[in-house]
Amino acid sequence: MFLRFVIRKTAITIGKRNMSMEAKFEPLFKKIDELKPRFIDRLAKAIEIPAVSSDESLRPAVVKKAHYIADELKKLGFTDIQMKELGTQPPPVNDPNLQLPPVILSRYGTDANKKTILIYGHYDVQPAALEDGWDTDPFKLVIDEQKQLMRGRGVTDDSGPLKGWLNVVEAHRELGFDLPVNLVTCFEGMEESGSVGLDTLIAEEADKYFKDVDTVCISDNYWLGTKKPVLTYGLRGCNYYQVTIEGPGADLHSGIFGGAIAEPMVDLVQVLSSLVDSKGKILIDGVMDMVAPVTEKEKELYEKIDFSLDEMNAASGSETCLYKNKSDILMHRWRFPSLSIHGVEGAFSAQGAKTVIPAKVTGKFSIRTVPDMNSDKLDKLVIEHCQKAFSALGSPNKCKAELIHNGDYWISDPFNASFTAAAQATKTVYGVEPDFTREGGSIPITLTFEKELKTNCMLLPMGRGDDGAHSINEKLDLSNYFGGMKTMAAYLHYYAAAEGK
Amino acid sequence: MFLRFVIRKTAITIGKRNMSMEAKFEPLFKKIDELKPRFIDRLAKAIEIPAVSSDESLRPAVVKKAHYIADELKKLGFTDIQMKELGTQPPPVNDPNLQLPPVILSRYGTDANKKTILIYGHYDVQPAALEDGWDTDPFKLVIDEQKQLMRGRGVTDDSGPLKGWLNVVEAHRELGFDLPVNLVTCFEGMEESGSVGLDTLIAEEADKYFKDVDTVCISDNYWLGTKKPVLTYGLRGCNYYQVTIEGPGADLHSGIFGGAIAEPMVDLVQVLSSLVDSKGKILIDGVMDMVAPVTEKEKELYEKIDFSLDEMNAASGSETCLYKNKSDILMHRWRFPSLSIHGVEGAFSAQGAKTVIPAKVTGKFSIRTVPDMNSDKLDKLVIEHCQKAFSALGSPNKCKAELIHNGDYWISDPFNASFTAAAQATKTVYGVEPDFTREGGSIPITLTFEKELKTNCMLLPMGRGDDGAHSINEKLDLSNYFGGMKTMAAYLHYYAAAEGK
Repeated sequence: MFLRFVIRKTAITIGKRNMSMEAKFEPLFKKIDELKPRFIDRLAKAIEIPAVSSDESLRPAVVKKAHYIADELKKLGFTDIQMKELGTQPPPVNDPNLQLPPVILSRYGTDANKKTILIYGHYDVQPAALEDGWDTDPFKLVIDEQKQLMRGRGVTDDSGPLKGWLNVVEAHRELGFDLPVNLVTCFEGMEESGSVGLDTLIAEEADKYFKDVDTVCISDNYWLGTKKPVLTYGLRGCNYYQVTIEGPGADLHSGIFGGAIAEPMVDLVQVLSSLVDSKGKILIDGVMDMVAPVTEKEKELYEKIDFSLDEMNAASGSETCLYKNKSDILMHRWRFPSLSIHGVEGAFSAQGAKTVIPAKVTGKFSIRTVPDMNSDKLDKLVIEHCQKAFSALGSPNKCKAELIHNGDYWISDPFNASFTAAAQATKTVYGVEPDFTREGGSIPITLTFEKELKTNCMLLPMGRGDDGAHSINEKLDLSNYFGGMKTMAAYLHYYAAAEGK
Repeated sequence: MFLRFVIRKTAITIGKRNMSMEAKFEPLFKKIDELKPRFIDRLAKAIEIPAVSSDESLRPAVVKKAHYIADELKKLGFTDIQMKELGTQPPPVNDPNLQLPPVILSRYGTDANKKTILIYGHYDVQPAALEDGWDTDPFKLVIDEQKQLMRGRGVTDDSGPLKGWLNVVEAHRELGFDLPVNLVTCFEGMEESGSVGLDTLIAEEADKYFKDVDTVCISDNYWLGTKKPVLTYGLRGCNYYQVTIEGPGADLHSGIFGGAIAEPMVDLVQVLSSLVDSKGKILIDGVMDMVAPVTEKEKELYEKIDFSLDEMNAASGSETCLYKNKSDILMHRWRFPSLSIHGVEGAFSAQGAKTVIPAKVTGKFSIRTVPDMNSDKLDKLVIEHCQKAFSALGSPNKCKAELIHNGDYWISDPFNASFTAAAQATKTVYGVEPDFTREGGSIPITLTFEKELKTNCMLLPMGRGDDGAHSINEKLDLSNYFGGMKTMAAYLHYYAAAEGK
């Protein structure tokens, strides 16, 4: 086995010619197109394994998929393949001995003269079933020839992009081209279930497996719309709170007690109504003061982005957008904080009518955070606000406001070497400058990589905004699969050639 | 069989002596005490049948209990026993052919010179299981000798009171005393599940089986506290509403859309917060204007009632009462309207954190109604208020407020012949004047009887306020079972002797 790798590596070295970088792109892109049947087949085999991380009964399938990928890595000449075990899954679980799926670490190249890129991806998927409304079996890759797209659970999130990196390596090997950078993989199997255990692993491997990493590239998000490629340089954080109001010792009958008892639910709606207004304005004193002001230069960024109110309405399935112009919409999704009220625990929540006075109710809300909000200060402002709003009611009930979890926002420099290389790659492949976008959601692992590896991250999406990542009929357009791979390939070369990281 | 009844009836007639009414009470009460083993056994046999009307799988047990009671009625000389079938149970049901349990109609006496009392009771019970926290098997009557009480599901609600009427008849028969009134029974098996089908039956039988009924006596409520007998002359009504706010086409991710979309849940808490304040004050214009003013005479009624803030706190398991003095507490439970917010359908309601923007949320609330509120006018005020409160938000979402169901309040004349007779009976048995109470809850069947039979109703409770009717360890004190039967017996005689109805 070792011999075989040596031989192959030699073959690659032999195949290394003194071509200019751009000259390599034509044969590379041609090769990627040529290998289409193989690349689709590689993805199809992955899709057939129902690697749903949230379903305990499917854990063996998740592990099986990990081994499928590891075998592919081996065949492609990746070395030092380690299936990192993360131990048993913490509660709540049905099976207390349930093992977490492994994180696949591997290397392609160990040349100290080359830069090293960590590529992150995940091989687990969201649940899916025909009964949910899929047109085809979600765990069978189906090609819609008319629409020129592939359908199946995981095609865009995140098996397509993950396989994309493997395919890029294969295209280089087939051509006898040397890879211009070293790759390190970090492929996890719990992303759809909170990336349990990954933070610890990254911290542990920061000075070991990951010690030479220069930059991190994550392909696990999407274009903003359907036409224009994007590079993503920012994510909002999320501080999730709950406010609990407790009154009687047990739920009471509203006929017998209504009118004479202080009702926790009545207090709760008063407190919740003090948080945000129907225009989306956060009413908690001091929160907006922490938000970085919008600069003129930043304003221009939004104006250039390919997006419209119609796309927003199509995405929400309604005409309930709070803003009419593109810049306002994007800024309120990406660079301003928002406060959402998610629901109430402990109150009547079923269909029909129940004449209960709930004894203890917990309102859930969260704030999406942005630069330069301080998470601790935000917690303090929110909790004090809730206590003050409750005190003003003069209720004999008890109130407790608390943080459930938080994750910081992330913002990168979209003009660093990695982003610049990816922008050049995008221009080369798609013929347009990518839009530089931020996203409203959170990918906490981005921050972990930056913090632990003391490096930067870039989000390089492959799929489109309408891929239906967590929905039914998840798809990936063939043009995005192949365009995405070409962009990845060109990115490696531009990044290798760039000054700095 | 017919012959046997004739002979027995003759025996009763023979036993009829020209005794004064009061003179009969001593032997009657003595006989009731003497028959203690038999009366407890009759109740024990009933408790052993798990007649849970809300559990479809236990429907055969409900029917079995109906037949047990019918057999007892037959043995005691009741005639014209009819098991009235009500057809299949309407949805939602698992078994579309599920038959409703029968209503037991029967007569004791058909003397045109006597008054006729309809006695209402129900033989079905609330669900119960040892696992809920019962100290003993809920479907086995257990006597706590130390506390002198009986425990078991249904002892106080409503098998004890129902059997009480049968026992009263038996005591008369044993003594050879003629019953001073005719009785008509209306014993149903769906009371704990909304009395399905009973309204129709009462309407159908109003001019038939029930045509000679002079008054209706319902023993299906409780003393206010634990020491003083009460007679109940009023109930609040209940108008139950929902307000639905609808926005996006589907639930959205708060990271991706938060800040740019009008959130239905944000609008909903604003609308709900406009309904009532934390002091229990209804904020809907015009509602309080419909409430009958408190008279000085009425005020005195509340002051006399045996009740305290401590009892209120014990009942709610907290110190969250909105009022400190007895009269205020009772008036706000009985004679003022109240508005309770029960919960929200469609929002996140589980434990933990979910970053969802619910697309469609429905707030549930109800108003307990009192004299002289007009139900239709109330609906109009409530719906207009919700629409106005929503309009003020300027939200692009859609809002709909609607009534789900309503039931009128009930108020009777506590000085009519029936109440006066029951008050005399209470004084005779317990040595105290009963408190005249109202209740905050609703018993819709009370109104149906009054309307369809064009007569009056009285609520004559047997058990105490702490019996735990719908809770674990349901109990009935032996003194209440036997005191209650004696009160029932004396009531029949006082009512027979009274002028008017």
